[in-house]
Amino acid sequence: MASRSNFDLADIQAVVFDLMGTCTDWKTAITSAMSSCLPLCQVLPPDERATLAQQWRSGFFAEIHDRFSKGLPGEDIDITHRRVLDQLVAQNPTLGASLQDEHREQLVRSWHDQVAWPDSIAAIEQLKKSCMVVVLANGTTRLQLDIVRSSGLGFHMLFSSQLLGLTKPSPDIYLKALSLLGVEPAQSLMVAAHAYDLRAAKTTGMRTAYIRRHTEDDHEDMALVKNEFDLFLDGERPLHSLASLFRR
Amino acid sequence: MASRSNFDLADIQAVVFDLMGTCTDWKTAITSAMSSCLPLCQVLPPDERATLAQQWRSGFFAEIHDRFSKGLPGEDIDITHRRVLDQLVAQNPTLGASLQDEHREQLVRSWHDQVAWPDSIAAIEQLKKSCMVVVLANGTTRLQLDIVRSSGLGFHMLFSSQLLGLTKPSPDIYLKALSLLGVEPAQSLMVAAHAYDLRAAKTTGMRTAYIRRHTEDDHEDMALVKNEFDLFLDGERPLHSLASLFRR
Repeated sequence: MASRSNFDLADIQAVVFDLMGTCTDWKTAITSAMSSCLPLCQVLPPDERATLAQQWRSGFFAEIHDRFSKGLPGEDIDITHRRVLDQLVAQNPTLGASLQDEHREQLVRSWHDQVAWPDSIAAIEQLKKSCMVVVLANGTTRLQLDIVRSSGLGFHMLFSSQLLGLTKPSPDIYLKALSLLGVEPAQSLMVAAHAYDLRAAKTTGMRTAYIRRHTEDDHEDMALVKNEFDLFLDGERPLHSLASLFRR
Repeated sequence: MASRSNFDLADIQAVVFDLMGTCTDWKTAITSAMSSCLPLCQVLPPDERATLAQQWRSGFFAEIHDRFSKGLPGEDIDITHRRVLDQLVAQNPTLGASLQDEHREQLVRSWHDQVAWPDSIAAIEQLKKSCMVVVLANGTTRLQLDIVRSSGLGFHMLFSSQLLGLTKPSPDIYLKALSLLGVEPAQSLMVAAHAYDLRAAKTTGMRTAYIRRHTEDDHEDMALVKNEFDLFLDGERPLHSLASLFRR
């Protein structure tokens, strides 16, 4: 754990979490869904399925950033996931021929069923003793509900981009969530495994905690990220480390 | 328990709860806060404090219905509570003289700290195993967060009138919540201890479960209410009875 700032954790009233990747291990969920998809397994061995999963996730982020930079409204994550999957599959004609519409839909749907990282559930329960603990993430409210139900995560409240009518990394979405929570930016902590998310939160005056997850941010220089936010938590149980700081 | 309809509980994907009065015992919370308010205790004996609490609650509902019938937007519950309290206190000059602004603010604030009815927490946990379980109630999101945190209730999601930009009993607020949940009205069950709430939900096609709580709906004829909704649950643990129906 590294800390660059001396802000007082006792001032924090709301802990605001990104969901997918930060609290859940989407890669295990998606590769497991791929393993249950016979036509995909017949074409791709396990390591190539893992690569496809990572490309799918990266392609999704590229789409999100592209739409955001063009000022386009957010779209249903299922639609984005399907488009990215179709593009990836098209690069492999054998796979493209064997993967029918129903298989693709099943794979798209599998993003709704996530597995919590081993430290997430207990850390969130611990944080809820002293703070409001909520989700702020791009996607639909139904997606967030499906993810928390399948993973067993329990938050006080879920804010989706669909619900707030804004998309991360727009600073307005953080400010809108904080206004609904009735706290000032300096009384809140944004927690994410994505530097782009925390960079935006930081501009609003929120405190920021970077959670290092091996599936996320592989394009970032961690030596730089380590010194960019109020807190940087890595190791096997970064959320456990975060929750320990709040024991009060 | 009485049931007027033969709808299949297996069709229900979302259980939508009213919060105050339905899941929490506001009267115990408010009379307890009144007992801690010395200038109020010096003027009113316990039975008159209980009466004042009930008048405060009734006055609040009268304001809500009045605003709704005039097509006015909902207002912050703290403001409504303060106005109704000021009106009630003005009827007793001795009380009016001794209750300072700080005491009144403290009493208004006490509505944020609620006690769960003895059957609520376990019933909601049970329902969460098979359904999405959410709150849909008038008020602010912060009020709902304060209530669930103080009472220990755990929902998947909280929908407030502030968040949705609509007020119960407008049918549109129920439909907007269901749209965010991604379910049809017939796949949802509205649960409340207020007939006016269920009457509105019923017009949208939602299934309805009336929860009899002795603090609520004292102006309603229960012999009629008993036959008005899909389910009518009374006794000591009505929410426990409801959750038992969902054990599947």
